[in-house]
Amino acid sequence: MHITEKLDKYHETSNKITFSFEYFVPKTTQGVQNLYDRMDRMYEASLPQFIDITWNAGGGRLSQMSTELVATSQSVLGLETCMHLTCTNMPLQQIDDALESAYNSGCQNILALRGDPPRDSQEWTPVEGGFHYAKDLVSYIKKKYGNHFQIGVAGYPEGHPEETISSNNLKFLKEKVDAGANFIITQMFYDTDNFIQWCKEVRAYGIDVPIIPGIMPITTYAAFLRRASWGSISIPEEFMTRLEPIKDDDELVREVGTQLVVKMCQKLIDSGYINHLHLYTMNLEKAPLMILERLGLLPTEGEVISQNASNFPWRKSLNPSRKNEVVRPIFWKHRPYSYVARTSQWAVDEFPNGRFGDSSSPAFGGLDLCGSQLIRQSPKKSLELWSTPKTFNDIALLINNYLTGKLVCLPWSDIPLNHEVDSMLHNLLHLNNKLIFTINSQPQINGIRSNDKIHGWGPKDGYVYQKQYLEFLLPKVKLPNLEKSLEGNEMMTYFAVDLNGNLTSNHPDGSRANAVTWGIFPGREVLQPTIVEKVSFLAWKEEFYRIIEEWKLTLKDYNALESVALLDSLAHDYVLVNIVDNDFVSEEDKIYELLINL
Amino acid sequence: MHITEKLDKYHETSNKITFSFEYFVPKTTQGVQNLYDRMDRMYEASLPQFIDITWNAGGGRLSQMSTELVATSQSVLGLETCMHLTCTNMPLQQIDDALESAYNSGCQNILALRGDPPRDSQEWTPVEGGFHYAKDLVSYIKKKYGNHFQIGVAGYPEGHPEETISSNNLKFLKEKVDAGANFIITQMFYDTDNFIQWCKEVRAYGIDVPIIPGIMPITTYAAFLRRASWGSISIPEEFMTRLEPIKDDDELVREVGTQLVVKMCQKLIDSGYINHLHLYTMNLEKAPLMILERLGLLPTEGEVISQNASNFPWRKSLNPSRKNEVVRPIFWKHRPYSYVARTSQWAVDEFPNGRFGDSSSPAFGGLDLCGSQLIRQSPKKSLELWSTPKTFNDIALLINNYLTGKLVCLPWSDIPLNHEVDSMLHNLLHLNNKLIFTINSQPQINGIRSNDKIHGWGPKDGYVYQKQYLEFLLPKVKLPNLEKSLEGNEMMTYFAVDLNGNLTSNHPDGSRANAVTWGIFPGREVLQPTIVEKVSFLAWKEEFYRIIEEWKLTLKDYNALESVALLDSLAHDYVLVNIVDNDFVSEEDKIYELLINL
Repeated sequence: MHITEKLDKYHETSNKITFSFEYFVPKTTQGVQNLYDRMDRMYEASLPQFIDITWNAGGGRLSQMSTELVATSQSVLGLETCMHLTCTNMPLQQIDDALESAYNSGCQNILALRGDPPRDSQEWTPVEGGFHYAKDLVSYIKKKYGNHFQIGVAGYPEGHPEETISSNNLKFLKEKVDAGANFIITQMFYDTDNFIQWCKEVRAYGIDVPIIPGIMPITTYAAFLRRASWGSISIPEEFMTRLEPIKDDDELVREVGTQLVVKMCQKLIDSGYINHLHLYTMNLEKAPLMILERLGLLPTEGEVISQNASNFPWRKSLNPSRKNEVVRPIFWKHRPYSYVARTSQWAVDEFPNGRFGDSSSPAFGGLDLCGSQLIRQSPKKSLELWSTPKTFNDIALLINNYLTGKLVCLPWSDIPLNHEVDSMLHNLLHLNNKLIFTINSQPQINGIRSNDKIHGWGPKDGYVYQKQYLEFLLPKVKLPNLEKSLEGNEMMTYFAVDLNGNLTSNHPDGSRANAVTWGIFPGREVLQPTIVEKVSFLAWKEEFYRIIEEWKLTLKDYNALESVALLDSLAHDYVLVNIVDNDFVSEEDKIYELLINL
Repeated sequence: MHITEKLDKYHETSNKITFSFEYFVPKTTQGVQNLYDRMDRMYEASLPQFIDITWNAGGGRLSQMSTELVATSQSVLGLETCMHLTCTNMPLQQIDDALESAYNSGCQNILALRGDPPRDSQEWTPVEGGFHYAKDLVSYIKKKYGNHFQIGVAGYPEGHPEETISSNNLKFLKEKVDAGANFIITQMFYDTDNFIQWCKEVRAYGIDVPIIPGIMPITTYAAFLRRASWGSISIPEEFMTRLEPIKDDDELVREVGTQLVVKMCQKLIDSGYINHLHLYTMNLEKAPLMILERLGLLPTEGEVISQNASNFPWRKSLNPSRKNEVVRPIFWKHRPYSYVARTSQWAVDEFPNGRFGDSSSPAFGGLDLCGSQLIRQSPKKSLELWSTPKTFNDIALLINNYLTGKLVCLPWSDIPLNHEVDSMLHNLLHLNNKLIFTINSQPQINGIRSNDKIHGWGPKDGYVYQKQYLEFLLPKVKLPNLEKSLEGNEMMTYFAVDLNGNLTSNHPDGSRANAVTWGIFPGREVLQPTIVEKVSFLAWKEEFYRIIEEWKLTLKDYNALESVALLDSLAHDYVLVNIVDNDFVSEEDKIYELLINL
């Protein structure tokens, strides 16, 4: 959605000041993974209206990481995302590529900047065939994409460091707005009076698009000084008087800095010129949230509920091409990144029923769409997390540590569990101890209110339901017993598949999807956001065994040969099985009873 | 489905003899309506594999009634239907028309006959441009429709009355089969030994399609003799010896006749030549069912359940163009004929989600598709049924008589209630007594087994649910109170509309469908076969007020002017309202509580 539209919509019914976060692109893949987790936590804690992602110019891997970050935050994390785009070091072809990838990832907002001079140069010079000024970039985007993108531009309340004639400040800003910009995000500043005066002048100059102040939290004294000097901005006396004496106490600096910034924001709000704050997070979590908390801008419980109302058990993607998506297979419950990546090539009309239209079509994108790595941890990090398991008992321990929250992820689970399996926990732990390895699960729920803190989802006043589900690795020797036990049992339906794709099942009609999560809401059709079905299970099986293979390679690199042999055995001597207990009314854990007695 | 395919499928898993019913086309519209009810009752009591409908040649209204009967039984009643088609008095154009209408109504089986000579002629002569022989008709259908239709032809175990050379009997039959016939239905007979001998000869002659014996029940002595002589068939001595002495006692004739026919059928079955009986019902209910009962061919409870499993709360249409239909608006619950007629023009791809694709499209066929009359009773019959109500209390009495089973239909309800509202009955009666007229309703159901005798539907081992629903006529003066009471109440959602289309509602999003019946089944997606929504309610409102208008016209013809004025007032001084109580978990009758306190 366009940013100003989103803000207008919010302010129609609320006087509350809105805010947004800016993140920069980390240098390593691991840093990117960590940032996703942080962005997600910050979103859940504060509900920003949008986020923006800085641009890594120069093409190649760095630019690709910017666009990947934009795509993931928009499509997987469901955050309204604004992408920075600069003229620095950007030939036209790279501008075109960046815009195209933003378009494809569903991004609808661009912050068009000239950009800073390259590090090795004092003076800014345009690249051959690129743009001179931000206004040229604005015009170009408008010309090429019409109104698809909303375009933001930078405002400089204290003048641009390269500006020599002060009257040019408003002139240049007006030119950018006249070229088609829809909103202004300002450079950081601390001089509130000057900002308010500048707003007055902007308006008097006939510029009437929204002005969004850029707010830089104060984290350490050194960073505070460095950033201010780098942007050539003035520091009010109060800031120096209060911060200088405590400059060596980081914690105190953060506390006093927060007080100063909060006071400044309050003054901005009171001025009436702004109704939105844009926080430069510097990829940190605590300082921006502290500011929002002090300002009373963190969401109320009602706002959190109403935000969750638009979500299913999974976060709805904000990529417009996925707007009709209402169903996902359960297998990727803890792997949203790879699920969205694999299905990112589906055209809009491939979601005719809110999901892959014909479940018998080979609709799952290839594994190559998931990026280079299926395991979202660097080799070093994965060794830290999971060490070098040498026995099946070590595997059991890893899984049980994940189940009890001691581990935040596993090779096949990117996101932490959220108390959702608490009611099955004891049985899951026991199964792992018995060397039946649990991969994914959900408990039976026979109608609880949709606002339940753990299992609730969807609009208010509804009831949600779940069929119990368990996916696990079963020793191959036990498979015949399982098959025999479940033969003809239509209430407990299973699929079992080995590394080589040998599939057995007791489903009467394997092509049918089994809804395992559904909800009943006032005035609506039944929503059924999670399913189990053969075709997607087989796609997931490929992914699962490729994850094991990747993990093996990492361990091999560390010469953990015992672990490699163990994973080999896991792949060859076990089968991947899922079972649904279709009797969601009974409260017995029949799947556990079955497995423990095999 | 093709008849032989259907029979083969059944006999793959069961040794039980199957059967079918033949009906002829009544002469009056009222007769047709009555026949529908009878066909429906006989279907529910016995589950025939198919039915067939005789042909009224000559074009015009009579032929139209044949094709309408075929369309209705296939599409509305969900009976696999075989249409007779004769060469008698049928120019090619009429044959084409008949085949086209059969095709459009989803019929896939034709019994191709030469037909009897016209009544006013002793000798059969072909009509100009028509066909001479049944085999020509068979070839023509094959040529024109390929394998769309399965084609049956007549067999004459005792020779055709017009046949002079007996060896022609098998020759002609072979020619018809060679032309493309898929099965043989024989002329009636009583001489079992002769039939078995004939079957032997048919097989020896190289004819290997299924032979289906035509069985004529014995209802009265006169009819028995007349039919036998008319078909020139021989009557075994035992039949005469046992029936002649009791010929004046109709009841005894039916009893002894049934014994004789049952014995004969048993012998046929024992011969091994046949596994299916085709009963000429002569549009009577009792005699064919008695025969089936004595033969032990009525369905077991298990068979009834498994048959119902393929149905929703409404009977699934067998018209292939409706095969994806899984949702219907609740408004036509007791008017299946008009619902199917109105939606009969929907193309297959207009059921992309098992229903009208875009609920905001004006997808409802015009009222002109419902045939000439919306009230499915002749003026005379409607007077008998509903008399001439003079006061609102008379209307209340009529509705309450319908609710308590004393009346089988109302102008706006074609089919009887089935204990489905028992739990609400007391409150419904009370509302009518208070002159709030109930039109349609269903009680709240919070999960009962899908094989429940009254509310169950769908596959076995499931749970079905309902939101309470009430549609009613409310005195216009009470509407403001209703609106006020339900303002902002998202748990009780209503639509109210008057004769002129003035609509009020508290739905937050009027374009959304509200699923009011749904079911959860092992290994499947959630089924949600009945919905409430604005666009279809507005289509239903048009139909409802047109029904009142038609009823008024009938009463006017009988000069019941007081009744006419009453219905005028009903149309102008009342509004049509529906309310859904979205809280299907609570057991209170909140809709009643609301209305009674308005």
